[in-house]
Amino acid sequence: MSDPTFGFLGPPGTFTQEALLQVVDPESAELVYYPTVEEVILAVERGEVARGMVPIENSVEGTVNASIDAIGFETEGLLIEREVILAVRLHLLARPGMSTGAVNEVYSMPHATAQCRRWLRENIPDAKIVAANSTAEAAGRVAYEKPDAAAIGPNLAAQLFGLEVIARDVTDHPEAETRFVVVGHETAAPTGRDKTSLIAFIAEDKPGALLEILQEFSGRNINLTKLESRPTKRVLGEYCFFIDLEGHTSDENVAGAIAALEPRLARLKSLGSYPRALGRLDAERLARRARSAKARAGSD
Amino acid sequence: MSDPTFGFLGPPGTFTQEALLQVVDPESAELVYYPTVEEVILAVERGEVARGMVPIENSVEGTVNASIDAIGFETEGLLIEREVILAVRLHLLARPGMSTGAVNEVYSMPHATAQCRRWLRENIPDAKIVAANSTAEAAGRVAYEKPDAAAIGPNLAAQLFGLEVIARDVTDHPEAETRFVVVGHETAAPTGRDKTSLIAFIAEDKPGALLEILQEFSGRNINLTKLESRPTKRVLGEYCFFIDLEGHTSDENVAGAIAALEPRLARLKSLGSYPRALGRLDAERLARRARSAKARAGSD
Repeated sequence: MSDPTFGFLGPPGTFTQEALLQVVDPESAELVYYPTVEEVILAVERGEVARGMVPIENSVEGTVNASIDAIGFETEGLLIEREVILAVRLHLLARPGMSTGAVNEVYSMPHATAQCRRWLRENIPDAKIVAANSTAEAAGRVAYEKPDAAAIGPNLAAQLFGLEVIARDVTDHPEAETRFVVVGHETAAPTGRDKTSLIAFIAEDKPGALLEILQEFSGRNINLTKLESRPTKRVLGEYCFFIDLEGHTSDENVAGAIAALEPRLARLKSLGSYPRALGRLDAERLARRARSAKARAGSD
Repeated sequence: MSDPTFGFLGPPGTFTQEALLQVVDPESAELVYYPTVEEVILAVERGEVARGMVPIENSVEGTVNASIDAIGFETEGLLIEREVILAVRLHLLARPGMSTGAVNEVYSMPHATAQCRRWLRENIPDAKIVAANSTAEAAGRVAYEKPDAAAIGPNLAAQLFGLEVIARDVTDHPEAETRFVVVGHETAAPTGRDKTSLIAFIAEDKPGALLEILQEFSGRNINLTKLESRPTKRVLGEYCFFIDLEGHTSDENVAGAIAALEPRLARLKSLGSYPRALGRLDAERLARRARSAKARAGSD
């Protein structure tokens, strides 16, 4: 990655920055934050930054559709270069020396506090829940204005604002993960364990349209990892499918499926091929598959 | 609908209450609000309320996955009885007599303010954006505490808190809509224009599994209106598809497809059949189809 400028969904201290720091060395890169995912993606399109990182699936920040719409409908030629999957880990953050029992107010984004409702009710039922525009804003208020309050946020927010984690993993659904993508202009080289994202635009939503698409993939033994139907919003009456599949556009079978589909669709937009990240569920599924293959081999 | 108790995602003044008031007479029904969509749905399952209304798609409140997960994975036997599609209309609300130029602070949920970012920048760039836990909480703060502030929220929030709409439709994406569903225990009678929601659980995500499912629908000329792949979360390694289709489970072709699929899937869960609501895009598509059919008839 030559040009070291990266846009991300800010402010500093967000999960997106946490995800970005897993793949970028802050010493050698320039990180620029934007207030919305749409603005991150448009900044990449304008060339203001070389790449941008945005959450795309299952995020506590709730901006999934905004990312998909901006990449899919509002820009042309942008490619997903990489994906990162991060466990959503929210902690209770307060000034050093503060105890959980002494917390009288809890600051966070409504989406983050909603994910911690049970923990809050069982542990600090009398604390008042106060909204903030981001987990970073919440941490800032505790650090600079509210000594008796705590914030709910990621580890990075504690580090940036000099707070301590006074209770760890306070979410009701500790299995939650967020998938982030790095958007840029370059096609990632094949690694042998890749994923390709496509949008298939269909002129009319008639029975069988999707079936024809899937037959092209299935016939070439291409596994789909995600499939979602959506109205295109921009062109009335037009529907589309967001498709993630295993393989790289430089693979013969993937290239063949795309070539076969292109003339039969209103449009087939490629959002790029990139190395596949494994989430917790993926990792466990693969481990289970390996165990079952071993068991089968053992019984032979 | 005999038992007139309805749960909804509160507090009063939310979009969900606005949607509920489109289908329920508040004079003859008892409306009970809950803090999360999960709690609404669990209250219906426990029988605390007869029915519950929750947003399920494209909501500004951002709680879509929470609704689908609670109906699909956390409860058994609940059915969607009805759907309602509401345009997301956000206005700038203030005390009577207030002018837009005099607003120095704007209160709302982060998700709502994010949707109005361009309008705010162009019209009141100097106003400070302050977070609230709901659009109703924002309206309450303006009504009771902050005379120089405005709130971003739906019409209903203005009515409930005695505020005025001082600027109408301040969202950057005026086409946004939210789909809500009424969840209960009864199967809605067929109307001839129905929809059925299913979850198909697949034991292994192998190429071709979805293809087999779609062939059963396509072969019976059943149109799918939504299709989404999801990990089941509760059972590791298991994937499922959320499917919405045109038709009622009492229709011969739908019943036939379900009977054919059931023995071939890990599980097929029916979430009910219910009258289909038309959103703006649906209505425009149908109008376009009617025009094109008329044009064809005229050219004959």
